[in-house]
Amino acid sequence: MKDKDLHAHHISQQFNTELDDIKTRMLEMGGVVEKQVADAINAFMSQDSGLAEDVDRGDRIVNALELSIDEDCTIILARRQPAATDLRLVLSISRIISDLERMGDEACKVAHSAIKLGELGGLPRSVLEIRHIGDHVLGMVRNALDAFARFDSDKALEVAEEDHAVDIEYGTAMRSLVTYMMEDPRNITACAHLLFVAKNIERMGDHVTSIAEQVHFLAQGEIPEDDRPKGDSSAFTLVELK
Amino acid sequence: MKDKDLHAHHISQQFNTELDDIKTRMLEMGGVVEKQVADAINAFMSQDSGLAEDVDRGDRIVNALELSIDEDCTIILARRQPAATDLRLVLSISRIISDLERMGDEACKVAHSAIKLGELGGLPRSVLEIRHIGDHVLGMVRNALDAFARFDSDKALEVAEEDHAVDIEYGTAMRSLVTYMMEDPRNITACAHLLFVAKNIERMGDHVTSIAEQVHFLAQGEIPEDDRPKGDSSAFTLVELK
Repeated sequence: MKDKDLHAHHISQQFNTELDDIKTRMLEMGGVVEKQVADAINAFMSQDSGLAEDVDRGDRIVNALELSIDEDCTIILARRQPAATDLRLVLSISRIISDLERMGDEACKVAHSAIKLGELGGLPRSVLEIRHIGDHVLGMVRNALDAFARFDSDKALEVAEEDHAVDIEYGTAMRSLVTYMMEDPRNITACAHLLFVAKNIERMGDHVTSIAEQVHFLAQGEIPEDDRPKGDSSAFTLVELK
Repeated sequence: MKDKDLHAHHISQQFNTELDDIKTRMLEMGGVVEKQVADAINAFMSQDSGLAEDVDRGDRIVNALELSIDEDCTIILARRQPAATDLRLVLSISRIISDLERMGDEACKVAHSAIKLGELGGLPRSVLEIRHIGDHVLGMVRNALDAFARFDSDKALEVAEEDHAVDIEYGTAMRSLVTYMMEDPRNITACAHLLFVAKNIERMGDHVTSIAEQVHFLAQGEIPEDDRPKGDSSAFTLVELK
């Protein structure tokens, strides 16, 4: 190898190391958020304030990771001026970490509601439907991160397609909560919390879908067409209770 | 000017035109979203299904603009390899359009709820408090876009600081809605819709705050520290109703 080639080889190796590093840290961040989601759902089911505090602690780690990965993405864009696949990777990571951070925020809100629901007394029975959506979304988070780690475009698409099922489960939980409030007005305050918990989890589903779409974009070079309905399907199903 | 300088000058002028173009189109997109927010609030107050459909039409324009501006940002990053201020501008625009698009989505949800509330009959009295938050957020959207157009970092910071006031107004509206549900169970379905409309508008406030933070970052080179509370303040205030 000539001197010039050696130099280029060295630069390119360094660049690959930098790319590997942001990928690894993004997956690390994903792992923390996945744990936040799992802990938030468990904290909610058991009103475990210790677990809820773990979710908050995770938030600080996630925010720090987001800032530092984002800074590194900007530095790579400025110094390495990546093209094609590398540019796509950096831009995707920069978006995925933003969705991960927002997902972590939703987990914190669920955790805070868990503490407040504990103070209000027992959980209404609709809580099982919320656990069901929560477990579903948690599975999507795992699969989306796995799809990223393997650059598996098909798996990413499967995750994105599950969002519709989550929306339907969410509509069912909403109807059940509203019915429960009508049956006994003493349930209203607790159920109002649950409405928001359900919404927080449904929004986690939106973020993980957006991550899965980025993974697909990364592996395929295109974003799947956004044909999901924009409105809350819940808004429509609630009318049936009229 | 030498030939080489002339060539460089030409390239740099072309680059400036490209940057101006994505700025202009981002502001155009901002204008459409601002109108979506205004129309959604008016549609909600008057249950005007025609206005609600306008909001949906706006969504298609907004999605198309987001895709095309985002593509142009990626092309600029790949071809022009911008540094320093220019890189910051492209990255900020790429983030702002994402927040604008999500704000437009929230406006669509409000518009859909407007139609459904119309089908449910009259609006509960708490609706005025929601209009109040809506007007507040709409003003923030106008000021944030104005701050971007002038690269006015102080104005951007003022907008970001208003988010806390919106959160407090939101908590008040929530308490009032829950009280109203308790007073008469026949209000529950309509109020459940209103809870989500209030939440949609509060989330618009989050997005416009995030835009204002980007504008501040653009003008100052830094992101203001995230000291906003992560949880819903509503989740805490609701407990007082116990």
